[in-house]
Amino acid sequence: MEEVDNKQVIFKGYIERPPKETDMEIKVSKIKLRAPKGSGAILVKNLYLSCDPFMRGRMRDFQGSYIPPFVPGQALEGFGVYKVIDSENSDFKPGDLFSGLTGWEEYSLICRPQQFRKIQQDNIPLSYHVGLLGMPGFTAYVGFFEVCSPKKGEYVFVSAASGAVGQLVGQLAKLHGCHVVGSAGTSQKVDLLKNKLGFDEAFNYKEELDLDATLKRYFPQGIDIYFDNVGGEMLDAALLNMRINGRIAVCGAVSQQSLSKPQGIHNLYSLIIKSIKMQGFLQHNYLHLYPRFMEHVISYYKQGKIFYIEDMNEGLESAPAALAGLFSGKNVGKQVIRVASE
Amino acid sequence: MEEVDNKQVIFKGYIERPPKETDMEIKVSKIKLRAPKGSGAILVKNLYLSCDPFMRGRMRDFQGSYIPPFVPGQALEGFGVYKVIDSENSDFKPGDLFSGLTGWEEYSLICRPQQFRKIQQDNIPLSYHVGLLGMPGFTAYVGFFEVCSPKKGEYVFVSAASGAVGQLVGQLAKLHGCHVVGSAGTSQKVDLLKNKLGFDEAFNYKEELDLDATLKRYFPQGIDIYFDNVGGEMLDAALLNMRINGRIAVCGAVSQQSLSKPQGIHNLYSLIIKSIKMQGFLQHNYLHLYPRFMEHVISYYKQGKIFYIEDMNEGLESAPAALAGLFSGKNVGKQVIRVASE
Repeated sequence: MEEVDNKQVIFKGYIERPPKETDMEIKVSKIKLRAPKGSGAILVKNLYLSCDPFMRGRMRDFQGSYIPPFVPGQALEGFGVYKVIDSENSDFKPGDLFSGLTGWEEYSLICRPQQFRKIQQDNIPLSYHVGLLGMPGFTAYVGFFEVCSPKKGEYVFVSAASGAVGQLVGQLAKLHGCHVVGSAGTSQKVDLLKNKLGFDEAFNYKEELDLDATLKRYFPQGIDIYFDNVGGEMLDAALLNMRINGRIAVCGAVSQQSLSKPQGIHNLYSLIIKSIKMQGFLQHNYLHLYPRFMEHVISYYKQGKIFYIEDMNEGLESAPAALAGLFSGKNVGKQVIRVASE
Repeated sequence: MEEVDNKQVIFKGYIERPPKETDMEIKVSKIKLRAPKGSGAILVKNLYLSCDPFMRGRMRDFQGSYIPPFVPGQALEGFGVYKVIDSENSDFKPGDLFSGLTGWEEYSLICRPQQFRKIQQDNIPLSYHVGLLGMPGFTAYVGFFEVCSPKKGEYVFVSAASGAVGQLVGQLAKLHGCHVVGSAGTSQKVDLLKNKLGFDEAFNYKEELDLDATLKRYFPQGIDIYFDNVGGEMLDAALLNMRINGRIAVCGAVSQQSLSKPQGIHNLYSLIIKSIKMQGFLQHNYLHLYPRFMEHVISYYKQGKIFYIEDMNEGLESAPAALAGLFSGKNVGKQVIRVASE
């Protein structure tokens, strides 16, 4: 069988700072659109690729995480929506659509498919399977309901609130009867939070001089639940404003410029004096809840009770800049790359 | 009725650093050994007073904690064992012994008795009712079993391990089938941990140059449970050595010299990548477990399976130095003041 061109986004080498566009490069290699006989592998065409902050962790030369680092010189890997072209695996039929981990390239040979889910086509945009219905959406769902144990009427603060995870946390919290305030980094995002996503209040943290005072203004009664997507100064300020028995879901630390020498958090004493639980979590430890999540969120979406904002870039060439842009807040909503039309 | 002399330890004024002996002064005032008619109050003779690190928090001018600050010019308050002299409260009979919050003075008029428990005299030393069987012991019990959810065979690290709380945490962990390592600040304490309290290993943190390397040496497989009594650098080093799904009970931050500008914690990113739960807690939110705690710990003690090391100072005059000494690790075991014999 003939080989075809396969455009790829190559990982150049390990870094300790947030990624730049130049940490990746576009390369064209050749690939046979065939899975080797008896290999159990599948050959897929990638349609959408997801830019997620966790990918930054795989750009470090650090083996101790839940997922190994990228291999320099090879294509990046991330969540995507793909169509099966050829299959030596009975779970996958040519033409079927899946979401799961795949390569940052036009075509991928996947030897051991991971975290894949078959997509039942309906009226939901395909790209939502790496966003609202994918890892970020499920992270929001389990982080809010399982880690934060919310009660109706509680005061909820979400940082990076218009992002892939935050926008759903806020909407789920509103549907649960909570009072919800979000922070974001532009007036456009603040406007989306208040006028499109139904947050009670929102503010642009870049316009605030004293985050402690800001949080006291938006939460005169204090914060019951802080869904932390940023770490750093905002976490320190939130710690000062938590209520007794507060809960902090630690979901991300996108504010931290250097993961090897991150900023210090000074107010952990609040954990003791206010009996606060602070918990890191990984969505893949809660997969038994995935069917319930899908049922709830699809139902809310179809009833028009949930929106999901995407920032869609066109073409693999746009992927390095889009991934780097996550760390300066360039994206408005969930960052996705459209690699090909179905 | 005649007034008698009442020696008191007076709180001089608010501080932001750890207490010094000179932040308190001894004063002699007068008191009538009588509870006012119909007042519901009790008049007690204090036998033992407990020096506890949490008292430092009450020396700050800060209202947002679970317990209000001390009042300058008045006697300090803390846990103690007292004998009822006179009572206008039907729960208390003259001659009865109780543990509970009382004043740092020879005699106290207690208007609304708080956290009091009647002491059933048996072969257990009276002072243990502010230690092994009191707030510190119960803190160890609920912190270990309820916050840390230990499993047999897990790797447990305890800091300030010979202290009022730590020594019981370590022994409970051993009885539960865990591998237990403790840290302390003198070779004498390390010796007690290994040879008297049954810890598998112990080390003097003051002799270690790189706490991360130290923990890697004692926990080559990583730490499942860190019972944190100190905060600061040890917490930061422990965060680097936690295993996936690890638990950190945040019980104290005695290492922090300044509570208004504590040292930064830099490794919270570990919470995310290793799904760690970090939880502050207060023993008084678990009081429904107190009867079970008493039953277990008394039974262990009577079987000789648990020891409890006390550092007993004689006389109220010794109390200011004893309290201040907690913050430089001067005490060996639970610090108690004997105010009077029964």
